[in-house]
Amino acid sequence: MHVRLYRRPREHILAGALSKGARLPSARVLARDLGISRNTVEAAYARLVDEGFVMRRTGVGSAVVESLGEVAPFSGSRIRSDRPPARASQPAPPSPSPATLGKRGALMPALGQAESESDTGTGAWATNAPGFPWQRWNRLLSREARRTGAALLSASPPEGLQVLRVQIAHHASLARGVRCEPDQVLVVNSTQQAIDTAARLLLDPGKPAFIEDPCYPSALAALKAAGASVRGLPVDDAGAVTDRLPGNARPGLVYVTPSHQFPLGMTMTLARRLSLLNWASKTGSYVLEDDYDSEFRHDGRPITALQGLDARGRVLYIGTFNKILFPGLRLAYLIVPSGLARAFASARRIIDGYSPPLPQAVLAEFMASGHFASYLRQARHHFRACRDAVVKAVGRHWGNAVHLGPASTGLHVVVRLPRGADDVRLARHPVRGISIAPLSRYYSRRRREAGLLIGYGTATVEEIETEIRRLASIVRS
Amino acid sequence: MHVRLYRRPREHILAGALSKGARLPSARVLARDLGISRNTVEAAYARLVDEGFVMRRTGVGSAVVESLGEVAPFSGSRIRSDRPPARASQPAPPSPSPATLGKRGALMPALGQAESESDTGTGAWATNAPGFPWQRWNRLLSREARRTGAALLSASPPEGLQVLRVQIAHHASLARGVRCEPDQVLVVNSTQQAIDTAARLLLDPGKPAFIEDPCYPSALAALKAAGASVRGLPVDDAGAVTDRLPGNARPGLVYVTPSHQFPLGMTMTLARRLSLLNWASKTGSYVLEDDYDSEFRHDGRPITALQGLDARGRVLYIGTFNKILFPGLRLAYLIVPSGLARAFASARRIIDGYSPPLPQAVLAEFMASGHFASYLRQARHHFRACRDAVVKAVGRHWGNAVHLGPASTGLHVVVRLPRGADDVRLARHPVRGISIAPLSRYYSRRRREAGLLIGYGTATVEEIETEIRRLASIVRS
Repeated sequence: MHVRLYRRPREHILAGALSKGARLPSARVLARDLGISRNTVEAAYARLVDEGFVMRRTGVGSAVVESLGEVAPFSGSRIRSDRPPARASQPAPPSPSPATLGKRGALMPALGQAESESDTGTGAWATNAPGFPWQRWNRLLSREARRTGAALLSASPPEGLQVLRVQIAHHASLARGVRCEPDQVLVVNSTQQAIDTAARLLLDPGKPAFIEDPCYPSALAALKAAGASVRGLPVDDAGAVTDRLPGNARPGLVYVTPSHQFPLGMTMTLARRLSLLNWASKTGSYVLEDDYDSEFRHDGRPITALQGLDARGRVLYIGTFNKILFPGLRLAYLIVPSGLARAFASARRIIDGYSPPLPQAVLAEFMASGHFASYLRQARHHFRACRDAVVKAVGRHWGNAVHLGPASTGLHVVVRLPRGADDVRLARHPVRGISIAPLSRYYSRRRREAGLLIGYGTATVEEIETEIRRLASIVRS
Repeated sequence: MHVRLYRRPREHILAGALSKGARLPSARVLARDLGISRNTVEAAYARLVDEGFVMRRTGVGSAVVESLGEVAPFSGSRIRSDRPPARASQPAPPSPSPATLGKRGALMPALGQAESESDTGTGAWATNAPGFPWQRWNRLLSREARRTGAALLSASPPEGLQVLRVQIAHHASLARGVRCEPDQVLVVNSTQQAIDTAARLLLDPGKPAFIEDPCYPSALAALKAAGASVRGLPVDDAGAVTDRLPGNARPGLVYVTPSHQFPLGMTMTLARRLSLLNWASKTGSYVLEDDYDSEFRHDGRPITALQGLDARGRVLYIGTFNKILFPGLRLAYLIVPSGLARAFASARRIIDGYSPPLPQAVLAEFMASGHFASYLRQARHHFRACRDAVVKAVGRHWGNAVHLGPASTGLHVVVRLPRGADDVRLARHPVRGISIAPLSRYYSRRRREAGLLIGYGTATVEEIETEIRRLASIVRS
């Protein structure tokens, strides 16, 4: 009732139906007429006064203010004053078309949308290792939340909690051969934030950016959103073909996945790596190394990161916990040449401030106590068994009809189909446990290979065997 | 030992000290010479082979690969091969100067840095209501973490969890008079992310943006980082002087704090609000309404949000839980005209993906169960007492020497000092409980008022009394 008494006159005033200076009935009279408490009416009137719609003068009573006349009232037809306030949320005002976005802005929705439609987002490549120690994690979570209370939950540094940066530097150094000090480590929310921030800081509209083709579509989207002039680098068995980089390029950015090319799966050779670093140094460009899943190396020793070869501070290294642990964690990291660390921390203040400190503290403790390393060992064991199952199932059910790409690292493989095969249609088949996506969707150039990405990060060995058999029989028929 | 056996030759090869084709001693011989296990040597050699530095041929043994010759080796002087691997993190490579940032990027560090140095960041204005129900919050946290396990911790939508969007729409509608449906609500990490994202989507380099002067410095930084042509709007007792907006402006963005001008504290009058909305509609501009703390209204009824007056879909409304609850939560929201919702969700995919689902679920539950509303009531009570203490202490100790700004809302007040007073020096005095900042720092124009922002979001009534007495005596002397 209060809402009706307040909202109606307000809308009528805005719509011009109640003219300036018009007197409202006295609270006493209105209360009597409506058979409601006078307090209710008084409350509604008081609110109208507070908000500047109505003025009260002793002896005169309540009246619509004069000063509204300074501005043109809204057209009455837009105010839906007769609509009953049936639900908690009031009806939304009409909306403009998205055409009113900025030029740069208009690019982003299209890019984000394309990515989501092609089903190539991170969702499809989530991990769900059966052995993740949820109990232990949640115990640490409760403990950190209790122990630290308000202190940990208050503002924290844009570059990340120091305890976590130290753990990350240690891990990246030991596990990936990255050469860094903790103060080069920036904690971010996701690989995506790392790429987007690097693109904003290092690229300008029209500056050259290079990316593998085929590639990780969200990385491509971030480079395009920065306004860069993006060119694809073909990929062969030795990784991105770095000698296609133009020798006379202006300074720019090269995004690569040298440890495990996404999506094809090969490792970039040493010669290519050195050629890439040389080129970056010569042209004054930076290399963005996305090392998204090489903690899961199934055969042989892990290949050290490209960053570890870089003697000239040209490489920005990205690692993520959203893939090794769980996507909802939202913690990843960027390791930058030390001359850039301050710039990135400052940019982070403007972009969104900082990552939530509580999960950072939990993760630091999870790492420091050795739980992280022992979980990694176990997960590696599990995913290797899955990988073995994929390789076996493809060999048994698909035989020579397809070509299986490199399978020594990570959580997915690529099965190449004969050129011309409709991989988009094939990937629409519902599958259980595993995830599938059409290889052709990852290419930018017209000449696309057909194939199927098979993700086993959320599958059991049984599901792998069953589903690949089913897929093979679909392809045959 | 393995590391030394692997790292030394690797660095020598890279430095060119070990030439292509050079034979390495056999593993058996080297193991004997060094008096170590042959397995250790084999492991190191195997890694060198894996990474492409060394090749092994039966009958020939291990030798440096030939293909390194394709690229020029790094200069030997850069490789610090003699440095002992004494610490876990390897020494960082030398770094380039930050001058290699993009033009747009070079702007961001300066902006972020300026903000942090002026001590006007969110840190100084944190809340720490003594009554926050940590136990209850942590119980919900443990429960949600346990209950949902992997499901909740996997990827989630860029626009936020639906349960939370419904709660936010409900809260914004009831408490702030915002007119919206849940699908207009976008969960973000912080007010800062909301402003930055809106600026990226709606502004282009050179487009006009308007902001109050004095203003919230991080908002100014985000508008500048978007490359906008930013102009200040003076502020008087009726709020931002909206009739200074040029009638013939190209479409752009206006950032305002109409419920509680930051930092001065006044509420924008109805006439100004209507004039602003009219202007936005006429020029095709958007209004970014930052409603950062008006849940804490101490006197009279809350003034409804500007968004609630908007019949033409020109207002984007920002609310935050980082201030009402605790900064480390990292959850805020943007309520946009429905035609823009999809664009913002798509942009979020590119920017960083999505906010962590676990705290979203906890907050939704905290709100749905009524804990949020009852905490708000209690916090309002507490902060009103603090506000009263500030007003009383300023009156008692400072008297007529200063002018106290509006104090009806929020968690800080402004004490105006005589023009020419050195508020920057004054604000350097260490204080306990309360936070202080120089008003002049919040101005962009040359003509700056002197004053002191006094934040009481983390203070007790006793601290307020003591510290303000101390400050007053410093100013007198």
